[in-house]
Amino acid sequence: MSNTFNSPQPLCHYDVVIVGAGFSGLHAARILARKYSVLLLEASAQVGGRVRNHQFANGDVVDIGGQWIGPGQDRMYKLAQETQRKIFPLYNRGDNLLFVGKRKIRYQGAIPKMNALALADLGLMLRRFERMALQIDPQKPWAHPKAQKWDSQTLHSWIESNGFTKTAREVFKIGIGAVFAGEARDMSLLHALFYAASGESMEHLLSVSGGAQQDRVHGGTWSICSAMADELGEGCTLNAVVRKIEQTEDGVSLCYEQEGAMICVSARKLILAIAPNQINRIQVSPPFPAWRDQLFQRMPTGSCIKYVARYNQAFWRDEQLSGQIASTQGPVHVVFDNGEKGKDAGLLMGFVDGDTARTWDTKTADWRKQQVLQCFVQYFGEKAAQPAEFVEKNWSAEPFIRGCYAAHMTPGAWTSGGEKLRKPEGHIHWAGTEMATEWYGYMEGALQAAERASAEVHSLLSRHLERAIK
Amino acid sequence: MSNTFNSPQPLCHYDVVIVGAGFSGLHAARILARKYSVLLLEASAQVGGRVRNHQFANGDVVDIGGQWIGPGQDRMYKLAQETQRKIFPLYNRGDNLLFVGKRKIRYQGAIPKMNALALADLGLMLRRFERMALQIDPQKPWAHPKAQKWDSQTLHSWIESNGFTKTAREVFKIGIGAVFAGEARDMSLLHALFYAASGESMEHLLSVSGGAQQDRVHGGTWSICSAMADELGEGCTLNAVVRKIEQTEDGVSLCYEQEGAMICVSARKLILAIAPNQINRIQVSPPFPAWRDQLFQRMPTGSCIKYVARYNQAFWRDEQLSGQIASTQGPVHVVFDNGEKGKDAGLLMGFVDGDTARTWDTKTADWRKQQVLQCFVQYFGEKAAQPAEFVEKNWSAEPFIRGCYAAHMTPGAWTSGGEKLRKPEGHIHWAGTEMATEWYGYMEGALQAAERASAEVHSLLSRHLERAIK
Repeated sequence: MSNTFNSPQPLCHYDVVIVGAGFSGLHAARILARKYSVLLLEASAQVGGRVRNHQFANGDVVDIGGQWIGPGQDRMYKLAQETQRKIFPLYNRGDNLLFVGKRKIRYQGAIPKMNALALADLGLMLRRFERMALQIDPQKPWAHPKAQKWDSQTLHSWIESNGFTKTAREVFKIGIGAVFAGEARDMSLLHALFYAASGESMEHLLSVSGGAQQDRVHGGTWSICSAMADELGEGCTLNAVVRKIEQTEDGVSLCYEQEGAMICVSARKLILAIAPNQINRIQVSPPFPAWRDQLFQRMPTGSCIKYVARYNQAFWRDEQLSGQIASTQGPVHVVFDNGEKGKDAGLLMGFVDGDTARTWDTKTADWRKQQVLQCFVQYFGEKAAQPAEFVEKNWSAEPFIRGCYAAHMTPGAWTSGGEKLRKPEGHIHWAGTEMATEWYGYMEGALQAAERASAEVHSLLSRHLERAIK
Repeated sequence: MSNTFNSPQPLCHYDVVIVGAGFSGLHAARILARKYSVLLLEASAQVGGRVRNHQFANGDVVDIGGQWIGPGQDRMYKLAQETQRKIFPLYNRGDNLLFVGKRKIRYQGAIPKMNALALADLGLMLRRFERMALQIDPQKPWAHPKAQKWDSQTLHSWIESNGFTKTAREVFKIGIGAVFAGEARDMSLLHALFYAASGESMEHLLSVSGGAQQDRVHGGTWSICSAMADELGEGCTLNAVVRKIEQTEDGVSLCYEQEGAMICVSARKLILAIAPNQINRIQVSPPFPAWRDQLFQRMPTGSCIKYVARYNQAFWRDEQLSGQIASTQGPVHVVFDNGEKGKDAGLLMGFVDGDTARTWDTKTADWRKQQVLQCFVQYFGEKAAQPAEFVEKNWSAEPFIRGCYAAHMTPGAWTSGGEKLRKPEGHIHWAGTEMATEWYGYMEGALQAAERASAEVHSLLSRHLERAIK
C-alpha cells in the first residue's frame, strides 16, 4: 500500500478483516474467529449497525432500530438462544385501528372492515402480487422471464394499474411504507417482488402473529450484538473509520482512521458488511469496475424515523386496543405497542417513513415531536398527548449508516448488475443484509449473508492451507 | 479543523475554494478570480471533467468526452470566442441510416422513412412528450401539478403506455439512450421532461443542424478548458483529491491529498462543482442533513462508452452517407462522422450507452473493439473493419467521475428533495451541470450553474465587505 499520510507500514496482519459490526459483520467475525485471526472494524462508537437500544430515564430499554423476528428466521432465534436472550411476542391483543382519510375502522386480526369493494380490491392486489413474488427465485431475480418488464417500472406504477379503488391503493402503500421504509416509487417492481420472495411472502412480511412482526427480544435486539461483540473482545474495534483499501495479489491492505490517527493493517481476505450506500465512499485501489460502482450508485438506502413515546400506563390496552394502527394520512402511518408486560408496558412506537422521513430534518425536533404526538392523540385520544418520555431515531442522519431499513434497487439495477452483485471482488467478499438471498433487509438476512461470505472465505483460506501442507 | 493525519494547520486562506475543474469549476474560478483569491482543486491529472481530448498517432485530436454545442447555448459560443477557438459544424451531408432489427432504412433529414403507422406513432409520442415538457418550468419541475404522478413512474413506463408500435417505442428509446446515456427506466418521467425543458425541447436535443449536435470546437472542447486553466495559472491545482470538508461559522476548512501528502486550506466560501455521485464520497463535517445525503444517493450518473475509429479516408462520404446511424440492435446504437474536412476526416464515433456501457467492462478490450467494429461494418461495409486507430473511453470507469453524461434523478428524487437541491449548505455552494436549470447535462449547463453559484458567492462576499467597510 502506498504510504500516504505518512502512516506506518501495516502493523498487523490478519487472516480476515471485516468492516461493519452490525449483525452481519459480528456474525461473520464470530464464525471465522473460530479458525482464523479476525479483526472487526466498526466506524461508530458502538456495534449494532442499524440496530440500537435507547434507555429511558426510568430504566426501560427500547429498540430504536431493527427489532422484530418471526417464523422462518431460524438463525435469529438460534442466535438469541446462544446469547441467552429471551424472546417475547409483540403485544397483539385487542382491536387494531385503520384510518382511511378521516374514517376510523376498528377491527380484529389482519383484515380491516373496509367497504366490500375496497376490501375485495385490496385482496386481489395482494393475491396478484403474491402470485408474482412466488415465481421469483430470490437467488436470481434477474432470471425470471418477466424480469426485464418488472424491473423497468416502479412498484408505484404497478399499484396504480392494479388497484381499482383509491382506498385499496392507499392501504397497499401503507404496507409498502412500513415493510420497505420507502415510497413505492423508490424501487422497481422486481425489487419489491424479490424482497417479498426472500422473506417468504408479502403477507408474512405484513403480519404480526405468524409473521415478520411476531416476536421481540427482551432487552432489545442490540443486546445480542453486544453479547457477540463481548465474545470477540479485542477483535472488535470501535470508532475505526475505514478510508482506504488496496488489493494486491495476496490480499488486501486497509487503512482506518481512529482517534485522529491513521492505522493500516493487512489481511488475506476482507469482508465488507456495510450498506451499499457506504461502500463507494471508501477509496478502493484498484478502483471497482465500472459496473460495480454504477450498481452501488443505484442502491440507495430507504428512509425511516422511529419514534417511541413512553407513557406511565399502556392506557390503550384498557380500551381493548392493540396499539396497532395504520393510517393513510400520517405522518405516522404505522404504530405498534412496543411494550412488554408489567413495568415495561406503556410504549407506543411509530414509524415516519419514505419521503417524509427523508425530508423531516428540515423541521425542528420540537415540531416533529408535536406532529407525532398529534397523530398519537388522533389514534388513542388525549392521554397520548403527554408522554413521560419521547425518543426519535432518524437513521438517514446517522453517519456511516445514512438510511434504513435497507437499500432499494432502483429500476434497472437488478437486471443490469444484480447477477454479479455478490460475486467476490478480488479478495473482497460481501456481507450485510443487502447481500442476502433470504430475508433481504432483515436481521436474518444479515446473518444469512454473513454465513455465505464466511463460507466463501473459509473455503478459500482452507484450500490455501491444504496447498501449503501438501 | 481537527488536526487528523498530523496534517499541518491550514497553510493558506482563500476567499473561495472550488472543487472540480470541469467546465463548471473552471468557469466559476475564472469569474470569481477577477475579484477574489480563488483556489481550484482538481482530483485528476488534467482539467476538463467529463470533457477530454485524445490525440491519435497521426496528430488528429478527437473529443472523447462532451463535444457538441448548438443554438441556445450562448455561453459556450461566447466562451469559445473568448478562448479563440474555432467552431465548425458537425458533418451533416448525405443520407442517414436507421437500422430497425434487420431492416435498413436510408433517409435524409431528421425523419426516417419507417412504415407509415410506426412513423405516425413515433410522431405522436414525441408530440405528447414535448407538450408535457413544455409545461415544465426547469427552475422548479417539482411544482408542476402533475409532478407527483410523473415522478412516480419511469420514463420507460411512459414509453410503454404511449407507443403503440414496437418500432416507435424502440426508436424512441434509441433517442433516449443517445440523449441521456442511460436506459429509459433509469430515470423518472419527470426528470426526462425537465431535462428536455432545460434544453429547449426533446427535438432540439435530438437534432443536428439547428439542434444540440450542430457544432463542434476545433481542437476539441477540452482546448477551451485548457485555455481557462492557463488563465488561472497557479490558482488551479491538479491531482488534488479532496478528502475532508469542515464547516465553521466563518467558512470552511478543507483537506486534500496530493502526491501522498495531506494539505489543508481554509476559505470563506466553497463551491462544489463535481458530479453528485462524487459528493457523498467526501467526508463532510458537520455531516450533510439526512435529506441531502438521501437525495445524492438518488442521483446516480448515467453510463456511456465513447468509441472513435480513425480511418485513412472518410469512405462513407463518397457513398453519400452522412455517417449518422441509429440502430435498435446495437450494441453501438448511435454513430456520427466526427471528422472535420481534409486531413481530419475519417473519424467514426459511436456510443455504447446505458446497461451495455455499464456492464461492458466485464469483457476484454479486444472483445469490445470487435463488437464495435462489427457494428461499423454492418453500418458502412467491410472497409470499416480495419481502422488505422481506435480509441475507447468509458467514463464510468474513470475515478472521480464514474459515469456520464450526467446524473439521472431516479423516481421520487425531484419531488422529495429537488426543491432544496441547489440551496447553499452553509458556506457550500453548488455548481456542475447537475445543478443547472438551463441545459442540465450539457457543458452549457455547467456554465450556467457556475454563473449562478458565483453570483451567490459574490453577493455574500461583497455584502460582507460592505459591512466591514461601514
